[in-house]
Amino acid sequence: MKAPLYGKFELIEVGVVENDFTDEISKNYNDKNSKIVVHQDHVEALLGIEEHSHIVVVSWLHKSDRTIKRVHPMRKPENPLTGVFATRSPVRPNPIGITVCELIGRCDNTLTVKGLDFLDGTPVIDIKSYSKHMKAENPKYPDWIPK
Amino acid sequence: MKAPLYGKFELIEVGVVENDFTDEISKNYNDKNSKIVVHQDHVEALLGIEEHSHIVVVSWLHKSDRTIKRVHPMRKPENPLTGVFATRSPVRPNPIGITVCELIGRCDNTLTVKGLDFLDGTPVIDIKSYSKHMKAENPKYPDWIPK
Repeated sequence: MKAPLYGKFELIEVGVVENDFTDEISKNYNDKNSKIVVHQDHVEALLGIEEHSHIVVVSWLHKSDRTIKRVHPMRKPENPLTGVFATRSPVRPNPIGITVCELIGRCDNTLTVKGLDFLDGTPVIDIKSYSKHMKAENPKYPDWIPK
Repeated sequence: MKAPLYGKFELIEVGVVENDFTDEISKNYNDKNSKIVVHQDHVEALLGIEEHSHIVVVSWLHKSDRTIKRVHPMRKPENPLTGVFATRSPVRPNPIGITVCELIGRCDNTLTVKGLDFLDGTPVIDIKSYSKHMKAENPKYPDWIPK
């Protein structure tokens, strides 16, 4: 029996994160600024971004293990063993990071954002507008997720 | 001068969307159910997902043009020309789709969700928990985005 032919797709880096998180994400990352330096060949895709107070930043978590399927969330052994698809853990088959953050400003190809939880040097693969599409009404989730 | 060495990364398909949207997304997609059929080699990553009322579904919009950098959002000529990074347009350098939707139920490797705006057959590349990380307080955005 042949293995099923699942799709494979190639991502390109459109920018890179610059901040002070060289080894780990600071606990107060919500109050910290980062820069997103967009590569020149994608700058025209930023037109109008200044009109948004928040953006969705999508990254490739290049240091993450892609083989792990279950974790104790937030690296706390007391949290129940959980499938990575039921978490935001950086380890997952496709290590994509998604964070909603505040857009502080733009200068040419550089965005300054507040609240990004990606390490310095992380490749950025997409940026999107934030809108009501990203909001759930009265979400319910397990107790291990901070309220 | 050499071209800069930007990163390239390989994504794998972890599941596939099944719904009635064969050619286009129904206008009332918010009220419609879709299925996400997770491939068997990733089923263990679903452990605990039933405890979430909402999930973030990440897809590869395989029919999208990757060369377009600016669009009139929502395919309306009256909307101002806008960089794709300031929109949710499916056309973008890396055609990643991100939608928050309600998790109705799970049966083995199949999730039933409500509110997905991806076409039938779209490859799923990641699933994440929804939490307050995805929520912006008092977001501001251009008038062309429906409130």
